[in-house]
Amino acid sequence: MTTLPGTSVPTRLDLTLDGGALTAQLVDFPSVSGEEEALADAVEQALRELPHLTVQRYGNNVVARTELGRGERVLLAGHLDTVPIADNLPSRVEGDLLWGCGTSDMKSGVAVQLRLAATLPDPNRDLTFVFYDCEEIEAARNGLGRLAAEHPDWLAADFAVLMEPSGAMVEGGCQGTMRIRIRLTGVRAHAARAWLGDNAIHHAAEVLGRLAAYQPRTVLIDGLEYREGLNAVDIRGGVAGNVIPDECQVTVNFRYAPDRGPADAEAHLREVFAGFDLEVTDSAPGALPGLDRPAAKAFVAATGGRARAKYGWTDVARFSALGVPAVNYGPGDPNLAHKRDEHCSLSAIAECEERLHAWLTGPTA
Amino acid sequence: MTTLPGTSVPTRLDLTLDGGALTAQLVDFPSVSGEEEALADAVEQALRELPHLTVQRYGNNVVARTELGRGERVLLAGHLDTVPIADNLPSRVEGDLLWGCGTSDMKSGVAVQLRLAATLPDPNRDLTFVFYDCEEIEAARNGLGRLAAEHPDWLAADFAVLMEPSGAMVEGGCQGTMRIRIRLTGVRAHAARAWLGDNAIHHAAEVLGRLAAYQPRTVLIDGLEYREGLNAVDIRGGVAGNVIPDECQVTVNFRYAPDRGPADAEAHLREVFAGFDLEVTDSAPGALPGLDRPAAKAFVAATGGRARAKYGWTDVARFSALGVPAVNYGPGDPNLAHKRDEHCSLSAIAECEERLHAWLTGPTA
Repeated sequence: MTTLPGTSVPTRLDLTLDGGALTAQLVDFPSVSGEEEALADAVEQALRELPHLTVQRYGNNVVARTELGRGERVLLAGHLDTVPIADNLPSRVEGDLLWGCGTSDMKSGVAVQLRLAATLPDPNRDLTFVFYDCEEIEAARNGLGRLAAEHPDWLAADFAVLMEPSGAMVEGGCQGTMRIRIRLTGVRAHAARAWLGDNAIHHAAEVLGRLAAYQPRTVLIDGLEYREGLNAVDIRGGVAGNVIPDECQVTVNFRYAPDRGPADAEAHLREVFAGFDLEVTDSAPGALPGLDRPAAKAFVAATGGRARAKYGWTDVARFSALGVPAVNYGPGDPNLAHKRDEHCSLSAIAECEERLHAWLTGPTA
Repeated sequence: MTTLPGTSVPTRLDLTLDGGALTAQLVDFPSVSGEEEALADAVEQALRELPHLTVQRYGNNVVARTELGRGERVLLAGHLDTVPIADNLPSRVEGDLLWGCGTSDMKSGVAVQLRLAATLPDPNRDLTFVFYDCEEIEAARNGLGRLAAEHPDWLAADFAVLMEPSGAMVEGGCQGTMRIRIRLTGVRAHAARAWLGDNAIHHAAEVLGRLAAYQPRTVLIDGLEYREGLNAVDIRGGVAGNVIPDECQVTVNFRYAPDRGPADAEAHLREVFAGFDLEVTDSAPGALPGLDRPAAKAFVAATGGRARAKYGWTDVARFSALGVPAVNYGPGDPNLAHKRDEHCSLSAIAECEERLHAWLTGPTA
């Protein structure tokens, strides 16, 4: 990040601003993945000025917490980075909408985190605020993943809210995903003498037939409906227009409900594709919604009483792996994430902050 | 072709040499496709010195004929060009083998043509000798195809022998080939919400299933067994690892016996793949062996009495399209064509010439 003297790029954050104005200030702090240092500095500095918080830092990840000895601890997490800027900075306001890179995914969520950190010196539950880097790029660099590996104790909590854009609707847990490659083999031959060969593409008929006939499960967990899916996402085979091909590969993606783990998912795939050569090429476990926990129940009630299942994979699975149930809940619109015309509703930011504030100050169950 | 003064490249052909020595002379005349002019000049010049032949030329294609008023006319055809030289010139002899680019495919056949042209002033059937260019490259430039289009009368005959390498075994006719593309479509969606999409790859299951279950015909024509084949030669589909694909294409190659024409072949494919979007991308008709013709029967008898079906597509189909039954018969070994270590048996060249000579001087049926 460039913070050259004389530019209009801010170097401090003002947590007394309202959520919308603070979002604008965060958006005007460019922080493309890998270039979050200046913003992490500003976040750390602003949090250290709050006497009710203990602040820790690891790389460009900042963790602040209350230490009030409450019966429950709630963790609010958000990533500081954005996808590359697409000629959509600085931010600008038009009516109720704030436009700019990261408005939706997810500096509006970060603004709500910071506002709650500043305005809740005496919450009804202990709070942990996590600000992390490199969410938009390869998983190995993900700040939350690195915190989970190096400082899992910093992430200890009874319930976590990942403030990714969810249209201000609670999205519980997430589904797991697994990719496998099925390799069909045969014997190459000239197409004019096909009987001397063995067509590998034809062997894929059975694989695709099983996929086409597959009936995915719908699973109800904590009242949320998860929908599994098993799909070929790639197929390729062929040597030349006059050659019987000796190889064909099918890549299959299994999206599975969080009542299964990766081992169960793989066993299921080996059963579905019994008789075929199968290799797991990619795997990420899902996350249970944890809506049976008291803090979570109160959270859903405080945010309007409605929740739905999260289908796509998100960082909530990292909390799940640590034994912390987690939901997605943020003011941004997921359909606008990563778009050039990304924007966010100012009233949604205010409403999100208000609901979380109410949940963290009202009576606990 | 380079025929620089002072090089060892010959400029004249000596038709008094035996077939093997003449093959060596032809091989030492480089004539990669598109560079046949000097060799065509030499062939034309040598043929014009034979008073019993009428010689015509079109581009680098040379046609010579007897005009004896015989009851039948036999055509002997060969191409002058070779695939690119692969460090395998000049030719060299080792025992019975002549090594070098074009020895097998098909200057040994051309040498036999030239020997017969020179030594048969009074054959039992009228003879037409065709030497053509550009057989080894794209079909549009094929000299035989251009002669068929521009001077079909030059190719009129009752029976044709294409002197492509066939291991000195008569190979009758050739099978037709047709390529079709079957396009499966669907609706793209995120793999985490597969039910919003429609997987095009899964639709290929039925296409591959029909291919895997297909029972190809074996057809007996003039005593030769043709074997059809229907095969996927290419399949591809897929957008990304997390996307339900909206398109998948399967390319199918149909090799069909010469009792069908292209229209019948296409109608058959439309029946096999009823319900699917099918496009013909490539089509070349087969050729009937014509072994029921007296000249052909006598030819098979003269060459040892054995014949087999030709499975691969060859230029005999161009004769078939002109109504001239044709067979493949040449001294070269088809397995050595286009190889760096291409070679040909000198005794096979002599035997081929001898048998054809006997057939063209003995009693006609």
